[in-house]
Amino acid sequence: MRISARNTLKGRIVSIEKGATTAHVRIDIGGAVVTSAITNAAVDDLGLAEGQEAYAVVKASDVMIGVD
Amino acid sequence: MRISARNTLKGRIVSIEKGATTAHVRIDIGGAVVTSAITNAAVDDLGLAEGQEAYAVVKASDVMIGVD
Amino acid sequence: MRISARNTLKGRIVSIEKGATTAHVRIDIGGAVVTSAITNAAVDDLGLAEGQEAYAVVKASDVMIGVD
Amino acid sequence: MRISARNTLKGRIVSIEKGATTAHVRIDIGGAVVTSAITNAAVDDLGLAEGQEAYAVVKASDVMIGVD
Amino acid sequence: MRISARNTLKGRIVSIEKGATTAHVRIDIGGAVVTSAITNAAVDDLGLAEGQEAYAVVKASDVMIGVD
Amino acid sequence: MRISARNTLKGRIVSIEKGATTAHVRIDIGGAVVTSAITNAAVDDLGLAEGQEAYAVVKASDVMIGVD
Repeated sequence: MRISARNTLKGRIVSIEKGATTAHVRIDIGGAVVTSAITNAAVDDLGLAEGQEAYAVVKASDVMIGVD
Repeated sequence: MRISARNTLKGRIVSIEKGATTAHVRIDIGGAVVTSAITNAAVDDLGLAEGQEAYAVVKASDVMIGVD
Repeated sequence: MRISARNTLKGRIVSIEKGATTAHVRIDIGGAVVTSAITNAAVDDLGLAEGQEAYAVVKASDVMIGVD
Repeated sequence: MRISARNTLKGRIVSIEKGATTAHVRIDIGGAVVTSAITNAAVDDLGLAEGQEAYAVVKASDVMIGVD
Repeated sequence: MRISARNTLKGRIVSIEKGATTAHVRIDIGGAVVTSAITNAAVDDLGLAEGQEAYAVVKASDVMIGVD
Repeated sequence: MRISARNTLKGRIVSIEKGATTAHVRIDIGGAVVTSAITNAAVDDLGLAEGQEAYAVVKASDVMIGVD
């Protein structure tokens, strides 16, 4: 499936921490590490594992801009 | 201000497109370009300009994971 | 790409309204019509057109529950 | 209360799974099942129960479009 | 309809600015002014007008914390 | 860092409840109490504590409008 979300950042999963219902998946996207909070069910359904290639996907309306 | 959002990706603004109320700001974060949809008012208040250093900021709960 | 978002509702596009930067795409998912606000650029990149089959995709953390 | 969110899909709750702080509520909206991640406190305040009629409510800006 | 969103802040609409597809509605919630970006269609359907009592409604997972 | 999010409501933290991965932080913003769901890691990184001054920060596109 192709998706309308404007941001698809390729990287590699560096850690997966499952909670009671919510998991935190961290992806190294070439220097920066992006943290994602998804359901445990999604981790299982996609068969996510540390070391695997994956994408951080973000809808443009969920991206803010910061300046120093 | 320091903020709870887990993801703060440093980059440089490559384009700003203002709409009627919503602007699209694109930031090069080291190869990848991230698109952000924010209010025109935010663009003005922060004084954003092309070429400027800025951050793409994303809350962890707004990051999805994709796999091929 | 397979994605972690828990909700992928199949339907057919009934209308596309482009604004200055933001488009509204409406999908009939079997009786109910779902409205999506995405970028004009996404509409163009995906080549969306009325009558086309498409999915409304929503992350679980973006779904609220209402009761009468 | 009437709310600006464009998407209110009527259905019936098929499961409620409480975590430590976050609950997953699944609603059958006529064939498709929608997963919602809300606070445990919201589940209690609304008195949600399996088998109950309820709505999945989603803001238009949180709906993405996917195509095959 | 009662809704799972944890945050319902009562106030009064101080301005409505319609764009091509997206409107900005500002509500004074007792000193602070909250800005909301919703669809023009939602403004029309709810019959929103300046001076009217209204609520700013936010899902808990969309609230970040900042500190100085 | 200054951020594009339009809504920064100053208040005082009244409670912090950590879950397995997700924490709920409640801030009194002058009468109303706002609930935020953030990662446990963010609570630790910002050193949040009850009684502390803090801000509830919300992007305009995450604010809905309700009317009676």
